[in-house]
This record gives sequence, C-alpha cells and structure tokens, in this order.
Amino acid sequence: MKKVGVAILGLGVVGGGTYKILEEHKEFYKKAHGLDITVENVLELRKERALELGISESKIASNMAEICSNPDVDIVIEVMGGVEPAKTFVLAALNAGKSVVTSNKELFCKYSHELEKAARKKNCGLYYEASCVGGVPVIRALLDNLQGNKITSMMGIINGTTNYILTKMSAANGGVSYADVLKEAQSLGYAEANPTADVEGYDASYKLSILSSLAFHTKIPFSKVYREGITNVAAEDIVYGKQLGYVLKLLAIGKNTDKGIEVRVHPTLIKSSHPLASVNDSYNAVYITGDAVEDVMLYGRGAGALPTGSAIVGDVIYCAKQNQNYQYSTFNNTEEADPSTKFIDNFKSAYYIRMTAVDRTGVLSKVSAVFARYGISVAQMIQEGDGNSGEVPLIFVTHETKENNVKKAIADINSTNDIATVKSFIRVVE
Amino acid sequence: MKKVGVAILGLGVVGGGTYKILEEHKEFYKKAHGLDITVENVLELRKERALELGISESKIASNMAEICSNPDVDIVIEVMGGVEPAKTFVLAALNAGKSVVTSNKELFCKYSHELEKAARKKNCGLYYEASCVGGVPVIRALLDNLQGNKITSMMGIINGTTNYILTKMSAANGGVSYADVLKEAQSLGYAEANPTADVEGYDASYKLSILSSLAFHTKIPFSKVYREGITNVAAEDIVYGKQLGYVLKLLAIGKNTDKGIEVRVHPTLIKSSHPLASVNDSYNAVYITGDAVEDVMLYGRGAGALPTGSAIVGDVIYCAKQNQNYQYSTFNNTEEADPSTKFIDNFKSAYYIRMTAVDRTGVLSKVSAVFARYGISVAQMIQEGDGNSGEVPLIFVTHETKENNVKKAIADINSTNDIATVKSFIRVVE
Repeated sequence: MKKVGVAILGLGVVGGGTYKILEEHKEFYKKAHGLDITVENVLELRKERALELGISESKIASNMAEICSNPDVDIVIEVMGGVEPAKTFVLAALNAGKSVVTSNKELFCKYSHELEKAARKKNCGLYYEASCVGGVPVIRALLDNLQGNKITSMMGIINGTTNYILTKMSAANGGVSYADVLKEAQSLGYAEANPTADVEGYDASYKLSILSSLAFHTKIPFSKVYREGITNVAAEDIVYGKQLGYVLKLLAIGKNTDKGIEVRVHPTLIKSSHPLASVNDSYNAVYITGDAVEDVMLYGRGAGALPTGSAIVGDVIYCAKQNQNYQYSTFNNTEEADPSTKFIDNFKSAYYIRMTAVDRTGVLSKVSAVFARYGISVAQMIQEGDGNSGEVPLIFVTHETKENNVKKAIADINSTNDIATVKSFIRVVE
Repeated sequence: MKKVGVAILGLGVVGGGTYKILEEHKEFYKKAHGLDITVENVLELRKERALELGISESKIASNMAEICSNPDVDIVIEVMGGVEPAKTFVLAALNAGKSVVTSNKELFCKYSHELEKAARKKNCGLYYEASCVGGVPVIRALLDNLQGNKITSMMGIINGTTNYILTKMSAANGGVSYADVLKEAQSLGYAEANPTADVEGYDASYKLSILSSLAFHTKIPFSKVYREGITNVAAEDIVYGKQLGYVLKLLAIGKNTDKGIEVRVHPTLIKSSHPLASVNDSYNAVYITGDAVEDVMLYGRGAGALPTGSAIVGDVIYCAKQNQNYQYSTFNNTEEADPSTKFIDNFKSAYYIRMTAVDRTGVLSKVSAVFARYGISVAQMIQEGDGNSGEVPLIFVTHETKENNVKKAIADINSTNDIATVKSFIRVVE
C-alpha cells in the first residue's frame, strides 16, 4: 500500500466536494489502486468550513509554509481560484517538491509557464484536468489519446453560466431578455453576484487558451484570444436564428490551418443539427476534429463541486501512479506566443446580420450592392412585414467571408442614408 | 530523441491506416514528443498490401519469430482481429519483452487475463484503447479521469454497423425491412459479407465486457453479458416507438448497484431527448454515470481506418512515454468472474410490448388482468384501428418491472385463448 498525503488549499465548493470524494472512496482507492490517500492538511481562512466537513483542527494549517514543510504531504490540491495568493502558494508547493493538482483556469492560463518551470526543476507533477470543463475528460484526451493527430479544429461550449442563460432565453423564444435571465440565474446560484468573468467570456477564454495550446502544440496566450461575451445578445436574434435553423451558443473556437491559428470566444449561431446545438443548461461539451480521428465530442458537467472534484481526484490518482515519470507540455511553454506561430485575426466565417429599414422598397437592392462591393454572398434572407408597416426587420445569413469585409459592409450600410440600420451581427457555424 | 521501433501485425484497413498516420506525422512526433517512431517490421501474408503502402521489402517479416528477435522493435501493434493467430503472436511479443498495442476486442475480451499475466511478468506495456469504440477516448477516461468515481451506469452505442442499419430503418419510417437495409449496408461496405459478429451483438458484447470490467473494477467475462442482436427488429416497432417518443438503438448497458452487476446488449427504445438518441449512422457514443462526475458522454467514430488508427498511435506514444512505468488492471484479472461478484439476470427495466388481437372488445381488460397478476403497471398505450377492422395492434409501455415478470406475463397472454398474441417486446430506457 502506497501512502499518499494531500493538502487542499481552499474549502469552497470545489474544495469541499474534493474532500468528500476522497473521504467517501478511501477504501475503494486502496483496493483498486493500492493507494492510501489521506488529507493531511487544509488551508482555509474560514475555519468553520473545515470543521463542518469534519476535518480535525490539527489538520488546519495556519499558513502555506506549514504545508510545504509537512513531509507527509505529497500532493497539493489548489482550488482557491484567482491569481493571488494561489500563484504564490502553488509555486511554494512546487519549490518544496510537492506535486500540484489545480482547478484554477485563470492561474494556469496566465502563469503555466512559470508553474511548469518550477515543476520541471523539482521533478514534480503538475496536473490541471479540473481547470477546463469540470468532469469532462478533455485535457487527458488531448494529452494522450489524440496525440496521433494533427488537430485542425476545436469548438466548445465551455462555460456553464452562459449556456444556462442562453438555454433559458432560447426556451422562452423571445419572451425574456438577457437581463431577466441573468437575475434568475443569480438567484438560483448559477451565476455569481459579479458575473463578469462568465458573461463577458473571460472564463471561456482562459479555458480556450489552455485547450488550444495543448491541441495545437504551441503556446496560445490569453491575449491572443478574441473575446466577446453574451451581454449584448438580443432575444429576437435567438428567435430569428431558430427560424433559420440555428441555436445561439457562446462558442469557444480554435482553428489550426495552413495559414495560421485563430482562437475566439463569441456568441455563435450554430446549425441545430450539430451535436453542440443540443448541449443545454449547465452542460458543457468540446467538439474536436483531428486529421485521423475525424470528429470527437466530449460532453458532461462543466462545473460543480463533485464533477470538478472528480477531475481533481482523477489527477491525484494519476499523479500518484506516475512514480516520478511526469510529463510536461509538448511545446515551448513561454509567457508569450512563439514568434513563429501565425495568428489569424481577419478570420473567415458565415454571418447572421439583422438590420431594420423604414421603407423597404429598394432596400434589398441597396444592401445587396454593398455586400457585392465586399464580395459577400447571401445564403438566406428573411424580410418581415408587409412593406407598409413602418420599420421592418431584414435578416441575412451570408456564405463564408472574411470578418473585416463584413465589418466594412456594416459600416457602409450604417453610414449611408436611406439604406438600413444594422442592429446586430453574429457569426454562424453550419 | 528517443528511438521507438514498431512492428505492425496485419495490414488490413486499420493496419494500413495506422501505418499512414505514423508515416505522415513522423516529424510532428519528433518535435512534440521527442519520439522518433519508425515502422521496423510488418507481418502480412498478402505482401502486395505492404508494397502498395510503400513499405520496403526488407521490412516485411516472414514470421513472428523474426519480429520477436528484432532488437529494433520496441512495440508490436496487433491489428489482425480474431483470436488466432493473433493470440499466439501477441503472447510471443510480450514474452520477447515487446510492449503491445492492440485493437482486437475479441482477443482482449476473451484472453486479457493471459496477456496481462505475460505483460506483467516481462514488465511490458499492454494497451487496448483501439479495441473499444475506435477513436473515442473511453478506455483512457475510465482508466484515468474517472478513477475518483464509483461508476454506477454505462450505456453505449458501441457498434457502428448496427447503428447504421437502425438509423436507416428509422429514417425510412417503416418503409424498409432489416433485411433490405442490411443488403444496402453490405453493398456500401458498412456491413461485412458475414455480418453475424455485428448484427447478433457479439462485437458490442466483447466491448461491453472490456469496458464494464474497467468501470466496475471487477472482471466481467463475455459469458456474463446478456446478448440479443438486431436481426429480429421489426420496422413497425421503430415506427410505434417514434410515436411514443423513443428511438430504437442497439444499446450496451452496464449497471453497478448495491444488489449486483448487470451487463446486457439488446435492442432498446431510448427516450428521444436522451443524448444517445441522436447518435446516428456509424457514430458511436458511451454515456457514463459516476457518483461524482454525474453524466459524461464520449462521442465519435467507432470504427474506420484512421479513427481506430488514431487510438492505436495515441497508445504507441503513451506507451513510449511511460518509461517502463506500466499500469495494469485495477482488479484481479482472471478468466472467470470473481466469485464475490454478484450478477443480476432478472434485471429491472421498462418494456415496450406489441401484441395483436382479432377482436378488440375486452382485450384491454384481459391484458390488464394478466399484467396486474405480475405487478406490471402500464405507462402508455396505443390502440390502433376502429374496432371493426379485424386484427389490430395494441402497444403498451410499462413502468419499470422485472424482466422475468414480463416474460411470464407474455407467456400467459400467448397461451390463453382469446386474449392477444404478443409480437415483440423491447426494453425501454427513459
């Protein structure tokens, strides 16, 4: 029986869940893995959290140094979130020769180069499956199973809060606004009091930075991820989208083509027959395309105490069984992107464009002329109303075209008198 | 740069795909993993297959002994299929100290206890991700990511041929028979000339045996898997199933409850809103429920040269990076089940039962009386026709009940004059 001592930094939702899983399955881990895993220390300012979980007072460390110098601690589990003090604590653990398992996407996204350097130096394990998409085994799949592939594309619904909000808006079919649903989500605990990290797409961008670096074998820093949240999503775009056969989702998209890499998080209308279109509520999924494996989708709970705890404990067991044979990044993990990595800002996509026009007569020909000027071709159109009802909506879905062309066309339409006013434009995935 | 020599046994569809992946990505594996992977030998009776792939004649081994004694071969890839001579060759490789990567579900299902014993003895790696569900990373997920969990249930669409046939039958909405679609599938190469292994559920049962052993941490031999193929599926049951809100799939089901383990492969009507219901054509998926992770679904191509090759190459890279730190089963891998493992034959399920009655008057009350006798309660019913049209169908969906009760009720109905004749019964998953 191999003894494995762990310390848990932070006993919030995920820390508490992790502790419970470790305690409840203790005998099972002994039997299946020959691992006797014991929580030797916890670090938590709110002592009552530890006591409520039944953790004896003697295990509550008063500071990080105590954990670093505890010879019984082999693995430090960091589930505090945020950059500091998590970063200082994780570096201290690694420097003290402890392996680290973390669920901290912001920390890992921004500082994995520093953490990994420390881990390599001391030959420690550094695991982060729980940082992306909760219990869904996407990091291990990228690190191991899919290594035979050149991965060309990755699309994910990787934030539970925004997917919950968009699912509710979609179900209401125009009946509720973003603001209404956010309020409801906050009252139910599905969105935080300060929801910025989720609704503005930061959380999804951290995860996309981590996942796309693994998938494309080159560092994709957070700064390279184009980011657009869901705060400006209009209920009517969800309704028109449905009419056209699409579902609105906050997608994280990474593509690796001969021309370069594009990474972006934004509201997207995705074809309703696509497997990602049926990923609802707080479920998450990542859809990966490789040159050998074709399409793979990994689906499950992207957050929550036990699903995220499942990923953490999976990493703890994996780490313990590695017997010092730790693996690190398959790319040069520097702070910035490698200068040889090309990024595409002016990417290609299909677009949904909604505009309103006061007088419809002739609008279509004027809009078409502007589109033609920028080489944009129209795939679908909806023209509502009877032509006599004042301001009427006009919706276009374009074929694939370059982002900048669409932006220029929209600027031209808006700045020319007597055409129409563009109210929204949303990228489309067929 | 670490040199890794591989030998490929069998250059059929999967062997050829694997060779191509290894050759095309050679430089990539060097760069990302520091692994210089070279195909040193192939074993293939049809020499022309090797030559067509551009493999030089000097690499074509004349027998297995040549490969076993080739010091440049570190890993043997077995993609021949079937038990013999694959088993003899794999054992020879392991005994010669070579690690083995296999896609052979029948061999691994039936003889993993022998193979693993040989691997442990010589401290060799033994990897089999490709044996189950092609490129879908389900074995690695069970072995690593989900280890924190007690897995309570696993449901999968894990055979591409039968899923293709059932998808086509479903799309035709009663317009084609099983036999028609099988013929079409054979002409397109989606079903083999002798389709027994697929359509009678053997292939799915091999995979379920492997996957459920991993999930439930105890040996589940093939002989314990209840198996029923799709050859008796009637087109009309697909149509009535749809009317009732279900899709017909060949499901592999494993459950691990306090009362014991049940493992079964059979046609199943699954609620159309369930994520598995939209897994169509030759796509496969496994839906796993754990006590911590909740629900996870892994989806992708369950077969094919490149998707299966992707899983094989993933294992080759993984194996090469283990640096002799190989892991084996987390349970006592014996030929038979451990005597302490309880299996449930008389499992619980909901049921779809279709019967026909000549004269409908009074049939419902008579059938209900038989159902009541065995404690079966009805959830849904369809009674077709106007009561004057001769033989009419009568369809019931029951609440959960025990298999044996349903079988007894059916026997009673069929053996009593003047009730009805049961034409089919299908297990239902809500």
